[in-house]
Amino acid sequence: MAPETRHSSKTGPEYELIYWPGIPGRGEVVRLLFEEAGVAYKDTAKGSRAVPTVLAHSAPESAGDASNPPTFAPPVLRHGDLVINQLPNILLYLAPKLGLGPGLAGGDGGVYHLNELALTILDGLLAEVHETHHPIATDQYYDEQKAEAKKRAKGFREARLPKFLGYLQKVLDGERSGGSGWLYGEFTYVDLVLFQCLDGTKYAFPKTVEKLKKTGKYDSVFKLYDAVRERPNIKAYLESDRRIAYADGIWRYYPELEED
Amino acid sequence: MAPETRHSSKTGPEYELIYWPGIPGRGEVVRLLFEEAGVAYKDTAKGSRAVPTVLAHSAPESAGDASNPPTFAPPVLRHGDLVINQLPNILLYLAPKLGLGPGLAGGDGGVYHLNELALTILDGLLAEVHETHHPIATDQYYDEQKAEAKKRAKGFREARLPKFLGYLQKVLDGERSGGSGWLYGEFTYVDLVLFQCLDGTKYAFPKTVEKLKKTGKYDSVFKLYDAVRERPNIKAYLESDRRIAYADGIWRYYPELEED
Repeated sequence: MAPETRHSSKTGPEYELIYWPGIPGRGEVVRLLFEEAGVAYKDTAKGSRAVPTVLAHSAPESAGDASNPPTFAPPVLRHGDLVINQLPNILLYLAPKLGLGPGLAGGDGGVYHLNELALTILDGLLAEVHETHHPIATDQYYDEQKAEAKKRAKGFREARLPKFLGYLQKVLDGERSGGSGWLYGEFTYVDLVLFQCLDGTKYAFPKTVEKLKKTGKYDSVFKLYDAVRERPNIKAYLESDRRIAYADGIWRYYPELEED
Repeated sequence: MAPETRHSSKTGPEYELIYWPGIPGRGEVVRLLFEEAGVAYKDTAKGSRAVPTVLAHSAPESAGDASNPPTFAPPVLRHGDLVINQLPNILLYLAPKLGLGPGLAGGDGGVYHLNELALTILDGLLAEVHETHHPIATDQYYDEQKAEAKKRAKGFREARLPKFLGYLQKVLDGERSGGSGWLYGEFTYVDLVLFQCLDGTKYAFPKTVEKLKKTGKYDSVFKLYDAVRERPNIKAYLESDRRIAYADGIWRYYPELEED
């Protein structure tokens, strides 16, 4: 079977995820939704034209079409004639289609609660992790901003990460979560978002995350992490060759960023 | 009329916006939607209990309730029993209710295109502006990170802001926008998001924005800005005492950040 397409689906248009090759990155959050749901997707990052495909979607000449505005940056999702970008937006679109979140017409605010939880997790455990190694400029190398990165990482380790983990613990302790062990009372896509972002943050800051785990203040968060990892489809995926190892990109390991 | 509530509405539950007093900030983007639509809203930032109300929604004890998870940070929107946070999420919820965007049940992807445009504008002309003066730590003062801020601001002026403006020009030049002068072919809430974020960025980087305007490369973006400013309800709002002056917060003016 070609590595690029897991298995073809003859029912409905194919989903196509467009992202950089060689790193889990933002694309990985999308992959986990497909993998959990057992739904086929074309993963262009695994194919032979990975980089040109990404560039084609953000190049100056890529102007969108009659129904789609141009995209800004990967990840990009193509589904039939629809082309969308922005990670939390892709998740918002996909989750109900994959049975991982309430339908859009649901009246009780669920789709908005899940969206806000996803946005906050992506802020704290994805975007802010990237800022720890690129606090000055995204288009310069880490080596050109190491002193600033050390300072930013210190604040992340001591203040920001505990703040976000504390919030997520509070959500899990709250009435809406209702002791279910899931952020919103039943398993939804935001639990996958939390799993992936915490997994990446653990890779980037292993000592820090272990130390925070040992405080016992975020037990429900770490329990959720373990529970997601044991879900059959997720477990199988993590053990498969479709799971890319961490390298550069968002979640990367610089030991000096855990030293005072 | 009490400054906190514009005018009472007896039809349906009241909208309540919870945000910090004294700055436009993220709350201002929400205000513009209500003002454009001519819909009443309670603006707790203008009332006597502004700060305690914000704190009550992010304090450790604020645990949400049976239907709402706890909120993370302002802005927060209360509407009947619904309590939501995260600015792009509040906009996603409000826009169709205020006639400023398609509903979630719409079939052509419009809600996702608008959501992604809002997310990208908020990334580039709000979040990244805040990073220019707080590149090391949000919980430290600007004075403690001035050297790093100067470097971050240089990258913003020379690379990031042109990149985002170039993208928005491309959207306005694109087929979906269709020469309408609006980002998505007809006036929607994302045009208000662009107006407010560009207005704040102009306040923070007046020389830079003027210089970029003079290149002529972003004419449609600046035309859109002027067009929003002339809309009757927006014009009236901007001239009213409900419009707060820029001060600290996200969009703030440090002349040294425009010097090389």
